[in-house]
Amino acid sequence: VGADQVVTDAAVAASFAHDLTGRFSGRPLLVVRPAHTGEVSAVLRSCARAAVAVIPQGGHSGMAGGGTPRDGEVVLSLRRLQGIEPLDQTAQQITVGAGVTLEALQEHLRPFALALPVDHGARSAATIGGMAATNAGGALAFRHGMMRAHVRGLEVVLADGRVISRLSGLLKDNSGYDLTSLLIGSEGTLGVITRVRLGLERLLPRRATALLALPDIGQALEVLRLAHESVPSLQAIDFFELRGLRRVCAHLNLPAPFRRDHEVYLIVDCAARSDPSEELEVFVGVVEDALVATDLASRRRLWLYRDGQNETVNALGVPHKLDVAVPVSLLPRFLGELRVRVAEIAPAAELIVYGHLGDGNVHVNILGPPVEDVRVDVAVLELATALGGSISAEHGIGLAKRGWLPLARTETELALMRALKDAFDPAGLLNPDRILPDLDPG
Amino acid sequence: VGADQVVTDAAVAASFAHDLTGRFSGRPLLVVRPAHTGEVSAVLRSCARAAVAVIPQGGHSGMAGGGTPRDGEVVLSLRRLQGIEPLDQTAQQITVGAGVTLEALQEHLRPFALALPVDHGARSAATIGGMAATNAGGALAFRHGMMRAHVRGLEVVLADGRVISRLSGLLKDNSGYDLTSLLIGSEGTLGVITRVRLGLERLLPRRATALLALPDIGQALEVLRLAHESVPSLQAIDFFELRGLRRVCAHLNLPAPFRRDHEVYLIVDCAARSDPSEELEVFVGVVEDALVATDLASRRRLWLYRDGQNETVNALGVPHKLDVAVPVSLLPRFLGELRVRVAEIAPAAELIVYGHLGDGNVHVNILGPPVEDVRVDVAVLELATALGGSISAEHGIGLAKRGWLPLARTETELALMRALKDAFDPAGLLNPDRILPDLDPG
Repeated sequence: VGADQVVTDAAVAASFAHDLTGRFSGRPLLVVRPAHTGEVSAVLRSCARAAVAVIPQGGHSGMAGGGTPRDGEVVLSLRRLQGIEPLDQTAQQITVGAGVTLEALQEHLRPFALALPVDHGARSAATIGGMAATNAGGALAFRHGMMRAHVRGLEVVLADGRVISRLSGLLKDNSGYDLTSLLIGSEGTLGVITRVRLGLERLLPRRATALLALPDIGQALEVLRLAHESVPSLQAIDFFELRGLRRVCAHLNLPAPFRRDHEVYLIVDCAARSDPSEELEVFVGVVEDALVATDLASRRRLWLYRDGQNETVNALGVPHKLDVAVPVSLLPRFLGELRVRVAEIAPAAELIVYGHLGDGNVHVNILGPPVEDVRVDVAVLELATALGGSISAEHGIGLAKRGWLPLARTETELALMRALKDAFDPAGLLNPDRILPDLDPG
Repeated sequence: VGADQVVTDAAVAASFAHDLTGRFSGRPLLVVRPAHTGEVSAVLRSCARAAVAVIPQGGHSGMAGGGTPRDGEVVLSLRRLQGIEPLDQTAQQITVGAGVTLEALQEHLRPFALALPVDHGARSAATIGGMAATNAGGALAFRHGMMRAHVRGLEVVLADGRVISRLSGLLKDNSGYDLTSLLIGSEGTLGVITRVRLGLERLLPRRATALLALPDIGQALEVLRLAHESVPSLQAIDFFELRGLRRVCAHLNLPAPFRRDHEVYLIVDCAARSDPSEELEVFVGVVEDALVATDLASRRRLWLYRDGQNETVNALGVPHKLDVAVPVSLLPRFLGELRVRVAEIAPAAELIVYGHLGDGNVHVNILGPPVEDVRVDVAVLELATALGGSISAEHGIGLAKRGWLPLARTETELALMRALKDAFDPAGLLNPDRILPDLDPG
């Protein structure tokens, strides 16, 4: 790759070695920055020969330690894989290098009125390769699905340097097992994604955003049911609570959105070819109060009450952050029992929850108990799985949750996953120990 | 399962032993018809102990020999798994037994104005379990995706009888490798699907169908591009050619749709909340002629020109039938070269092609050469793969195309697939020899 693309200086390597959350860091053996697939393959062959562990890294915006090196690992940074191939307008598809950021792709596609219908707050850092490797979600997933729903092909380098390339973008190809789907969400443990072919959607020009005030989360489900039935323009439906709203208003110095307080708030985003705000009238009489905006500045002002939650929570201290999901119809039960369990374990804790209503994805933040005390984490994850939920809705397992994977997957499933890992990476050098828990010594 | 659910009589077992196409049949050891997951598990445990090969079977409407037994295999019929669980209206999901037919599901959901957005001609026979196992496609796949896009969870019995159940229907669950996606399309070689949780879409009440006449397939791509841009109600866009139209009109005694002949015809189906036929005006000046229908009877009449193609071809003789796909933008090149190659190999052959324009899925029918002469088949599959296409777009590999899989997948991919098969079914008893080609003895 050239000597200048191999970083051994610890100070220079720091941004590759410390994650955003401040929870994970390591001293990598070195950071290597290949420029194309051939170099990625050569790097992996060398590492395989030397039996050195390799951790592929995109924008390093992950939350689960899946892309942060431990001591002695080689960081394989994919950020230089910056190619954007010509747009295929007939198929509405594009092939891009793994290192292209979501934001760069969005800007590239805007003149064509097209977009990848996956979006999230880390768009300036997160790379398309990393988003495929982690099956990224976000607020649009309820409507459009996660990354797996939009990846039409991958180029992947295996642990031993062999390359698989399936980039012609076929929508129909029932020719054996779907390796592409399996690699998506495998967090760099089965192969290194170097190029991604994406299916795109047409940008809908007319937008409307509503902030809805509700008495409780049960009524939010009624809004969701109505939206399914009568609001085809719905793109996102997120929720937050009064406690979070108050904290955001104080932290960001925002005015309260409504004259009085409400227990639960929904932010609803709609997009269509013609003004979608008329569709929102279906909620009259169902909600306690509402604000609707159609211009960009006003829409952003409404979204700030939701988007400001994460920043506000992080500014209040180091929270226990848990990204769980439960079946949508069980959300009221989950949130009710969550409050009780957290109050039992940590009576002084402050609980701030928000998330994506449409897919039951709840971001749980617990402030107060020291982060080393994992009792609240265990309680939240056990509660979610007891209701058929997930211990990681969109952030993945990485290092952060591997110990808890047995809560969410049976021994049979874990055995199959280990066998899949062995099939792809028999030497166990690719992102070792991420996702899969240690084998029970018994 | 009870003695009456074990069929050993050859006459009774015949429908389980001979496939629709007439190409595959065998003398199964017996046919066993379990009533629920526990019985499926017990049957598989018994077969594992006896080291007998098992072939899972749904509606037996597959086209690739993936569900037809060979001599001495046990047919595991899933048709008695007929449960339909209560509809989850909040999540717009339903869980059904593997043996429920697509048609039965459609009828069950109609009163709720919901549907599984996958449909095809074999709806009265094909089961939901079989459709998941084969990742069924059809005309709506261009718009809505194939089965993999709609399965929200599976219950699966492994070859040794262990059961995996993941049916809570989470839209977001990044907890390790996605076993569900891998099992979909694995054609019963990795596990036996016993229950399926499906995501549903709202039925759109207003429909419009157009039959468009075009000078060539290149102009059809221009129609597709325009449709992407300006016809958001588009659900399906299928094509056929003059030769096929003439044969259908003669066979089904239909009038010619237009006053004069055209080279290529598109059938376009639209669905929306309000009359979608106005959107179709974008094609004025782009097509040579057009018919538009909005009532059910007239729409069906237009579709008959397309839907009658398969029946008509089968009535003309035993055709070479190849279900391939190519990248959409390469369709004109594929169809042009196809004509040349077939004419070279079999100058007297009649070539009838039709398919799904939006996803490049071409059903190639070659009449004339005896079916044992596979030279035209090889030529078609080689042409498709040379253009980055698929040797099986929606029918799967089964027994029919396993020998040709190396045309479409590299040795690296085939080795990974074999390793996956070993991980799930180390004894090789589940649908043996389907999908994967024999190892090269060299």
